[in-house]
Amino acid sequence: MAALFVALIHHPVLDRNGRVVTSAITSLDLHDIARASHTYGVRAFFVVHPVAEQRNFAGRVLDHWRLGYGREYDSRRREALDLIEVVTGLDEAVVAAERACGQRPLLVYTSARASGGTSYESLRARIEAGESTAFLLMFGTGFGLAPALLERADLRLASIQGPGEYNHLSVRAAAGIILDRLRGHRL
Amino acid sequence: MAALFVALIHHPVLDRNGRVVTSAITSLDLHDIARASHTYGVRAFFVVHPVAEQRNFAGRVLDHWRLGYGREYDSRRREALDLIEVVTGLDEAVVAAERACGQRPLLVYTSARASGGTSYESLRARIEAGESTAFLLMFGTGFGLAPALLERADLRLASIQGPGEYNHLSVRAAAGIILDRLRGHRL
Repeated sequence: MAALFVALIHHPVLDRNGRVVTSAITSLDLHDIARASHTYGVRAFFVVHPVAEQRNFAGRVLDHWRLGYGREYDSRRREALDLIEVVTGLDEAVVAAERACGQRPLLVYTSARASGGTSYESLRARIEAGESTAFLLMFGTGFGLAPALLERADLRLASIQGPGEYNHLSVRAAAGIILDRLRGHRL
Repeated sequence: MAALFVALIHHPVLDRNGRVVTSAITSLDLHDIARASHTYGVRAFFVVHPVAEQRNFAGRVLDHWRLGYGREYDSRRREALDLIEVVTGLDEAVVAAERACGQRPLLVYTSARASGGTSYESLRARIEAGESTAFLLMFGTGFGLAPALLERADLRLASIQGPGEYNHLSVRAAAGIILDRLRGHRL
């Protein structure tokens, strides 16, 4: 099985007008995506933010659950949050992923707006084949990943579609659904 | 296509010690599950709470996005939140669903702990067959739906599993994943 990594990107992302901005960290993103990452066998979940104050905020959320009150409250949350590494930028995430699994991961761009792109079946098959590579799924906060990240990506994943036109999912739901499509036990 | 409904239940649900409790409404649950519901063609999303103060809180969240600042900020959120009906109990949701589609929906119990249960493939096929019935998916907040709701249910859906043992997803992620398994466009 190829190693799988997740990165939640706060810069560069788009705002609702398509401008490139830096978004704030939302603590429920950390919880929900960590729990989905752990459920689907992700090796590490990188929370990427260029601003030290915001990285410190994430650190305090993690400390609460790893060391403080939350530790007693629900050990299953702590177990998931242990997957989180707070980093300054994508390069740092790539280096950490390579250190963890011995391979430089291919960067996978995700977007609700992409037309075309690699199918879930095809990426799932590559992960299961365990070819000598690793994959890092990039998820955008705000209104999605900036185009600069598409240029850096090795693969672009197809957008999630339901039966209609609307597909404006939260990043928390989208990350869970994409991981389920790639690694879920089918039945 | 059979009509599909979603209900987010705040009572009776379990706490971490397995006691039956009433949980508080989380505004991000409303947003995330409404957006997933709209993406996957759900007819109505019932937010079920027995306490008037909590139903009023949900109403204020909805007003903010339907009428106030949020309306201008992002019309796609409003469009999803329009699916929400805040109700006192499950009976009220069932009556409203029946009024909306002309059929009494079958109640579907979801749980991370269930072993066995109806497969996603099988329920997906029943929905697509459009047999003369409707389905209402019940999702539990807190640590999941109380056993009393299993007794009322017509169907019990299999739990979501990844490659390992851990499957402690947030209700926001679980609802998105289940809807995707039942109605997602496959590719």
